[in-house]
Amino acid sequence: MATTQGQVITCKAAVAWEANKPLVIEDVQVAPPQAGEVRVKILFTALCHTDAYTWSGKDPEGLFPCILGHEAAGIVESVGEGVTEVQPGDHVIPCYQAECRECKFCKSGKTNLCGKVRAATGVGVMMNDKKSRFSINGKPIYHFMGTSTFSQYTVVHDVSVAKIDPKAPLDKVCLLGCGVPTGLGAVWNTAKVEAGSIVAVFGLGTVGLAVAEGAKAAGASRIIGIDIDSKKFDTAKNFGVTEFVNPKDHDRPIQQVLVDLTDGGVDYSFECIGNVSVMRAALECCHKGWGTSVIVGVAASGQEISTRPFQLVTGRVWKGTAFGGFKSRSQVPWLVDKYMKKEIKVDEYITHNLTLGEINKAFDLMHEGGCLRCVLSVEV
Amino acid sequence: MATTQGQVITCKAAVAWEANKPLVIEDVQVAPPQAGEVRVKILFTALCHTDAYTWSGKDPEGLFPCILGHEAAGIVESVGEGVTEVQPGDHVIPCYQAECRECKFCKSGKTNLCGKVRAATGVGVMMNDKKSRFSINGKPIYHFMGTSTFSQYTVVHDVSVAKIDPKAPLDKVCLLGCGVPTGLGAVWNTAKVEAGSIVAVFGLGTVGLAVAEGAKAAGASRIIGIDIDSKKFDTAKNFGVTEFVNPKDHDRPIQQVLVDLTDGGVDYSFECIGNVSVMRAALECCHKGWGTSVIVGVAASGQEISTRPFQLVTGRVWKGTAFGGFKSRSQVPWLVDKYMKKEIKVDEYITHNLTLGEINKAFDLMHEGGCLRCVLSVEV
Repeated sequence: MATTQGQVITCKAAVAWEANKPLVIEDVQVAPPQAGEVRVKILFTALCHTDAYTWSGKDPEGLFPCILGHEAAGIVESVGEGVTEVQPGDHVIPCYQAECRECKFCKSGKTNLCGKVRAATGVGVMMNDKKSRFSINGKPIYHFMGTSTFSQYTVVHDVSVAKIDPKAPLDKVCLLGCGVPTGLGAVWNTAKVEAGSIVAVFGLGTVGLAVAEGAKAAGASRIIGIDIDSKKFDTAKNFGVTEFVNPKDHDRPIQQVLVDLTDGGVDYSFECIGNVSVMRAALECCHKGWGTSVIVGVAASGQEISTRPFQLVTGRVWKGTAFGGFKSRSQVPWLVDKYMKKEIKVDEYITHNLTLGEINKAFDLMHEGGCLRCVLSVEV
Repeated sequence: MATTQGQVITCKAAVAWEANKPLVIEDVQVAPPQAGEVRVKILFTALCHTDAYTWSGKDPEGLFPCILGHEAAGIVESVGEGVTEVQPGDHVIPCYQAECRECKFCKSGKTNLCGKVRAATGVGVMMNDKKSRFSINGKPIYHFMGTSTFSQYTVVHDVSVAKIDPKAPLDKVCLLGCGVPTGLGAVWNTAKVEAGSIVAVFGLGTVGLAVAEGAKAAGASRIIGIDIDSKKFDTAKNFGVTEFVNPKDHDRPIQQVLVDLTDGGVDYSFECIGNVSVMRAALECCHKGWGTSVIVGVAASGQEISTRPFQLVTGRVWKGTAFGGFKSRSQVPWLVDKYMKKEIKVDEYITHNLTLGEINKAFDLMHEGGCLRCVLSVEV
């Protein structure tokens, strides 16, 4: 690895030149890491709906050209000045949610939303010099979510990378960079579901299935999966879903169907779609007095949730979660360990394997019902 | 008292014959309590905005003619069959929020919203026979909130009456039937404010001031009062408010003013007005990552709250409270004891004293800035 340290690396990356146009595999120059930065050789990356959202052009904060991707695993190639917690050769998972352990957020003990590098990652650059480390023939290419994993090499802040067990298979644990922890953590950290609870999960994609898995592990007595695609139920059973409701099978509002099905409502509900109407239904299907609804899905920009305040005054609680409330650098390694001990599923979410060169096909697959996660091999 | 037991009592009551028309003091017949019921001689009653709301005709569940009133204190006159927890002569506070200790809600350990008698109290009658105990020359007059305290005698369910220390002054502790516990409990039970917290209180009426008092007792470091009437600040200081913000003094949205004033937002906010726009502001002035907003005010029927789901996904929590989360029969006596030990204020909320015959004047006073609580002497 010493051969590339301090040097610009030219490698392949999938570049989003503009919104809603196919990504293009390009030769990209990746500058060496500056102080507090880490250059990572990405070996495997998965795709997530947030990538597709920004790529679609609907994300008002989306910047082009950029290198998308935020659910991945790789090996540290080199580190910048002052980086102490990882070194070349370490196996890592990039973390779009940083954890600096020093800011007001990290020290609060109440949230995982570290604010240290957000001012830079939110606008596609690095903190040090407010510039990108990616370029093509001198033209800068923006970073994305502080991770940009659709590239053979990427540069991340040291607060945005979790060192993991080198024995963990990177082609599997790359999923622990986003979707699976988001679902598990929504149940364990945000809702704190107790044994015996009745749980409703809206949307049975990867995140929704991880919610079901988390709820099962927490001892939920009933896990009701709600999806407009009934074909998803068979798979969902394997993740803990005990009952399936398809809103298309009912004339009444889905919240009423669920209230009737559960003698007054569910104890916990999770919206894993990003649809504001479903968010309302998820709140309103909760039991009076204590039902808690957690928004996990990301709604399109500008959309709003609404309900009658009476829903809250009579005891329902409306919350949300980002990365499932997990502290990334501290807890992603713990999740990897849980996977290694077979305490959480990961392999079961991977329905497709392709290469970085096939990334546009992978985006197409994401919109098909049968695809949960598609893992791309990035190495050439 | 034995002289009236089992007999119909004719007494004075303020009857709301129809919406938005002055209440009329009438001779009302109050039937004896049936099984599980308690007839109470009301000595003092205060007025609350919920009375005014239903009286205004805006409450779609309001029924006329009725006897309003739900914040009062009195003495048990007689009890129906099977009533064991109170007996004639006991000093009591009627509780619009029942506590049966047997239903799913009471047993949950998660809520104070007992459901035992709601089916009856919600439609102005008693559970036993689904009829009213009030009548005028044979014409039934509806109950209100299961309490109907604008009457010299009322009949309540045994699960809706709290036995209190007979040494407590009824002309003061009548306030512990609604507004003061609602504010204190919103802080102590619903939000669980910790020492050092920054708190925002929207609306500095009785409930808002009780929130401030509760927050001060909880050790809040800053208690910011928000009201469009700057004259309220002087009084508010006495209840713990440390800073005052009048939205009229600012061009920017009030949530932005508060975020700037608090380096990112408050830890806890309380909406004590019943205005859905203010409810939104109260949520959005909360700190990212952990800020919790509690809806305490009652909005007009049909109105809805809304916000961007991003507010919740980034860690804010939206809750509500009814009667401050206090279990009425169990905890109202405890609040009375706290008052007797001078651990909570009550006298300080009473700005006016009138008689039942002056009740229309009392309603007028409620809409004036200088009035917190007006206590009516009901005895003639």
